[in-house]
Amino acid sequence: MSKYAFGVDVGGTSVKLGLFGAEGELLDKWEIPTVTENQGAAILPDIAKSILDKMEEKSLGEEDVAGIGIGVPGPVDRNGLLVGRAVNLGWDSLDIPKALQAYIKVPVKAANDANIAAFGELWQGGGRGYENMVAVTLGTGVGGGIIVDGRLLAGATGAGGEIGHLHLQDGEAESCNCRNKGCLEQYASATGIVRLAKRRLAEDEKPSTLRQGEITAKAVFDAVKAGDGVAIEIAERFGDYLGKGLAIVSAVVNPEVFVIGGGVSKAGEILLTFVEPCFQKYAFPQCRGAKFVLARLGNDAGIYGAAALVLRQ
Amino acid sequence: MSKYAFGVDVGGTSVKLGLFGAEGELLDKWEIPTVTENQGAAILPDIAKSILDKMEEKSLGEEDVAGIGIGVPGPVDRNGLLVGRAVNLGWDSLDIPKALQAYIKVPVKAANDANIAAFGELWQGGGRGYENMVAVTLGTGVGGGIIVDGRLLAGATGAGGEIGHLHLQDGEAESCNCRNKGCLEQYASATGIVRLAKRRLAEDEKPSTLRQGEITAKAVFDAVKAGDGVAIEIAERFGDYLGKGLAIVSAVVNPEVFVIGGGVSKAGEILLTFVEPCFQKYAFPQCRGAKFVLARLGNDAGIYGAAALVLRQ
Repeated sequence: MSKYAFGVDVGGTSVKLGLFGAEGELLDKWEIPTVTENQGAAILPDIAKSILDKMEEKSLGEEDVAGIGIGVPGPVDRNGLLVGRAVNLGWDSLDIPKALQAYIKVPVKAANDANIAAFGELWQGGGRGYENMVAVTLGTGVGGGIIVDGRLLAGATGAGGEIGHLHLQDGEAESCNCRNKGCLEQYASATGIVRLAKRRLAEDEKPSTLRQGEITAKAVFDAVKAGDGVAIEIAERFGDYLGKGLAIVSAVVNPEVFVIGGGVSKAGEILLTFVEPCFQKYAFPQCRGAKFVLARLGNDAGIYGAAALVLRQ
Repeated sequence: MSKYAFGVDVGGTSVKLGLFGAEGELLDKWEIPTVTENQGAAILPDIAKSILDKMEEKSLGEEDVAGIGIGVPGPVDRNGLLVGRAVNLGWDSLDIPKALQAYIKVPVKAANDANIAAFGELWQGGGRGYENMVAVTLGTGVGGGIIVDGRLLAGATGAGGEIGHLHLQDGEAESCNCRNKGCLEQYASATGIVRLAKRRLAEDEKPSTLRQGEITAKAVFDAVKAGDGVAIEIAERFGDYLGKGLAIVSAVVNPEVFVIGGGVSKAGEILLTFVEPCFQKYAFPQCRGAKFVLARLGNDAGIYGAAALVLRQ
């Protein structure tokens, strides 16, 4: 009998939910608000209720559901335990599967949200067909998710794939959100690109459209597409940092493919033209065959990956 | 019925072999020469003959042998295929298990030699009791082996754990053996420590026992133990490079433990006192709990890990 799975992606303001068929087809998706009051005590009951309502709507019994996968913004180990704080939810050290199963009697698996997004891209997105993948999310920060031989690399304390925080630059004066200095994230995130842009613009008076209006990562890449020389220099610096960072990652886990997603990746294929040559320059020769592709699932990567925890792994 | 396993560690000049009991106890070990003529065509038949001889000596039939594990100095993927050249053996692109099974009818598993040494340390050495480990071999070069959730990370092209070749230093003038510039290996290997020592000594005329005699990694750490100020500075630079490199590795795979082996590690625990503080300085906060221990199996790590391929994985 064909089974269904629910994929849940818990964010700080809303929870995304998806109902998937056994072959990974997304049958329905919806959102509910994340109620963070009282250390987020209502979040799991709310999720359980929303799933039970959907099961009733679709006339599904618990025997029809293979399980629920859930992605959480915090350090989750391979057993689904939140091993530290999920700051945006108010949670601290929680056995997520057990807690959710108090409300709904189906198998539950939990993982870190960046990792499940990676898993989603492997299953149904840009990484489809690969078994060894690194997903890179270029958003406000730089997130990562690593798949080794088809399995998520969670790490000892749920920090596997925290590639935004690999040390890349000695002598950096500004601090990263993690309080270290010189993290990849400080140069390759959306805010990092703005940092690089401001620094470049301050170096001289060379004309650039970036000297008018707000500087954003999107503005930089729009200017690149329009042929703005200064913007191209900024993109080259970004590409050098990210290419170098991913070359380092490849010497550790030697992936077949890098899948690049997040808001910054909306710049499109042109982004990769700045990253890949720098990757090739710094990569260990045997790791240079890694492919670069853009993520395909956008904001749905999390619910896909959460469902994959149940249906695939 | 209790089963036996053979662990084989193929080197450029000799092949180490071990006979193990089912609980991982080393019952016998011996060596045979590596005959590299004719693209190393005799190596596998020689190994098979040596194992068959040992089986006869011990009155073991094929049914008593759980299998043979074999470590090879080259890129081996997770299926035991040599996916490139094993330069020191003369081999190129070989299905190692299939080739050995032409001579002896027992299960065969193959992996990269640095990776199996890591696996040996996990099984019976410094990493015992851990499931997420990074082994670091500080020898002529810097090798690495990564274990994730108890499994070897081979990588897409057998280059998983090539941490000696992660880019660490911009602006390096000298080339690494891999032809890149600024690899960790250029500072943290035995030859890298000599490089750091020569550079430090050239900076000024500060007295040091290192100004007499040959400069080796051992001489540097002997001088450190004797309280030589210049040697201590050199060890601090080495520690900064290696600590930083391992902090980067921890942001990728978030291990529970680093197991430090290879010739340089014979300096003993004092080595770790230079590495660990620097690791802490650069590591992502959530990764700072990683332990540092010395390898325990020495040159036997390879045969242990090869046997573990059969008995453990």
